[in-house]
Amino acid sequence: MTLDRSGFDTAGFAQALLRRASVTPADDGALGVVAGALLRLGFAITRLDFGPEGKQTPNLFARLGTRGPHLCFAGHTDVVPPGAGWTHAPFDGEIVDGRIYGRGAADMKGGIAAFVAAVADIVARGGLKGSISLLITGDEEGPGRHGTKDVLPWMVENGHVPDFCLVGEPTNPQAMGEVIKIGRRGSISAVITVRGVQGHVAYPHRADNPVHRAVSLAHALQTHVLDRGNETFEPSSLQITSIDVGNPTTNVIPAEAVIRLNIRFNDIHQGHDLAAWIRTVAERYAPDAEVETHISGEAFRTAPGGVVSLLADAVRDETGRSPKLDTGGGTSDARFIASYCPVAEFGPVGATMHKADEYVALADLETLRRVYGRFMEAFGL
Amino acid sequence: MTLDRSGFDTAGFAQALLRRASVTPADDGALGVVAGALLRLGFAITRLDFGPEGKQTPNLFARLGTRGPHLCFAGHTDVVPPGAGWTHAPFDGEIVDGRIYGRGAADMKGGIAAFVAAVADIVARGGLKGSISLLITGDEEGPGRHGTKDVLPWMVENGHVPDFCLVGEPTNPQAMGEVIKIGRRGSISAVITVRGVQGHVAYPHRADNPVHRAVSLAHALQTHVLDRGNETFEPSSLQITSIDVGNPTTNVIPAEAVIRLNIRFNDIHQGHDLAAWIRTVAERYAPDAEVETHISGEAFRTAPGGVVSLLADAVRDETGRSPKLDTGGGTSDARFIASYCPVAEFGPVGATMHKADEYVALADLETLRRVYGRFMEAFGL
Ligand SMILES: [Zn+2]
Ligand SMILES: [Zn+2]
Repeated sequence: MTLDRSGFDTAGFAQALLRRASVTPADDGALGVVAGALLRLGFAITRLDFGPEGKQTPNLFARLGTRGPHLCFAGHTDVVPPGAGWTHAPFDGEIVDGRIYGRGAADMKGGIAAFVAAVADIVARGGLKGSISLLITGDEEGPGRHGTKDVLPWMVENGHVPDFCLVGEPTNPQAMGEVIKIGRRGSISAVITVRGVQGHVAYPHRADNPVHRAVSLAHALQTHVLDRGNETFEPSSLQITSIDVGNPTTNVIPAEAVIRLNIRFNDIHQGHDLAAWIRTVAERYAPDAEVETHISGEAFRTAPGGVVSLLADAVRDETGRSPKLDTGGGTSDARFIASYCPVAEFGPVGATMHKADEYVALADLETLRRVYGRFMEAFGL
Repeated sequence: MTLDRSGFDTAGFAQALLRRASVTPADDGALGVVAGALLRLGFAITRLDFGPEGKQTPNLFARLGTRGPHLCFAGHTDVVPPGAGWTHAPFDGEIVDGRIYGRGAADMKGGIAAFVAAVADIVARGGLKGSISLLITGDEEGPGRHGTKDVLPWMVENGHVPDFCLVGEPTNPQAMGEVIKIGRRGSISAVITVRGVQGHVAYPHRADNPVHRAVSLAHALQTHVLDRGNETFEPSSLQITSIDVGNPTTNVIPAEAVIRLNIRFNDIHQGHDLAAWIRTVAERYAPDAEVETHISGEAFRTAPGGVVSLLADAVRDETGRSPKLDTGGGTSDARFIASYCPVAEFGPVGATMHKADEYVALADLETLRRVYGRFMEAFGL
């Protein structure tokens, strides 16, 4: 099976993408580079810019074919700011010793390039049986309010719900083939404002110290064992990220203390149950506290069999490694997709993502292209 | 016994003092008003300005007579800023309906006026047997680094250590005769810096959350019962006055958390024992924490019999009330004096001290003048 039969220049396409300084929310023509390549491959392209007038988030949906099975590839062209410490220009796509350097090389312009190349190979093969789509957003690294989250309902309305979605985020810690992500933990954050009565430390009975209640509440929250994990997920983790009073003196009891926290939770929990739990604990330790919660994603997990095993087989066949089906780490746009269809993530090595001198190895890009191609054929395209 | 035999104008003298806007560190001539009256009564005056060149703290020591017994009256002419909400001018010494209004009327220019008037009465009586001194500082409400604290060693060096010291702070909550303070709690404050390793909340095992250790430490400190008090003192009280991290996000584990606290402690403890206890608890819950402590005063208590009972008798005879011998409330310069000689505090009603429309009733000033005079006679002057 020759899976790179199209002669598509993966590295050249990756370089073209890396030369667009698409630091969120800037696009700098990055989506246009993707659209151009897909147009040449026969895709129908829809540009979907959502959000408030004047600062809309650029998104793109492209589809080739109309029949099932329908595989969607999801990704983002936006990147985090380069930061300091680079020895290669962050937006030049410089190739040195078999590596392409640039912000986004691993996260995740490299993954997009590999997938577009794999599609080119399928097109070159001919006889596409199902259909292939791409959901590419320009805001995954930012707040993401009008990115993937807004494209999905549009896909529902327009008959584009896929049978499976593959996200090209960098899932491999060190080497290609190590990890397929089949789920992600959910995330809920809370801001808890504990109020009291200000007063002098010499007369604590005339004051009501909110710091003591905040400490008792924080202590109760941080010492509670939410769960012990399960076979797919690590234990849920609560982190108190800040406590702030802002009282520079040591002789005044302050009027207010604010606790900030985040919970990364597994599929034993749902966000609203955890929000209710936080409120219950707050009610016990700081009855008048004001509790604001924000659920930025529910935990999800795609069943390891079926399509996931086709992907795992493709990874193993091309890399020689049996990928771990993992659910750890941060969130990705897969959390939005999971409500619509089964989703898994596999992409480049992520060791340098969000760091200086981010790069992807050319050999890894070609491996990824072949993994994607092999998976598409197994999927029935 | 006629104790106001001199005809000294207590109210007029109090007005003269209140018209000096001696908000710490300003003196505005307030000490000069005191010095002028004492000079006329025959006192030897020493102006003692201590502290760094250009911003010295003004202090005054005055003594009448050279023999024992030696009674010292201690007080301050500086006042806290007037703040808002006054219906009387804060530095006019206005008299309305039998009350003198002004910042410092209760705390404690009124007490100084009553004592100077009582001394005038003793002088008018003639035949002073021991000696009377006054230690008046211009920095009690401020940091007080070069006030009473610095005058006392000078008094030792110059042979002025008194047999007893009477502090004229406003000790009565509502009515003259309620409270004599025979001690004060000590005060220690601490700033504890807990350090950790910053990281993303999704990867808590790669970070080291200092907030959790700070919360455990704060919880251990605030739930520990230091003591249950004794017959003279309330239980010691620990107040955590601030916890600060300053992390606005909920997805980053911060690198540092700072705890501030204060303990008002009774004579069961000494400051350095509490400092060691704080360090021990910190060592257990946050091993690498940096602990800074500052002892601003040790607890002290003057034995209730002897001279204190002479003062209590004078109060009861003039007010009809049996004063409570109390040790509650904040600190005063008595904490410095206690290392040199027995000390007790009795002064005006303090209900309006540090508030808008601070005042002292003229009748209370005259009562106080007679209490001081009666006490001086009982003391053997
Ligand atoms: Zn990404
Ligand atoms: Zn005072």
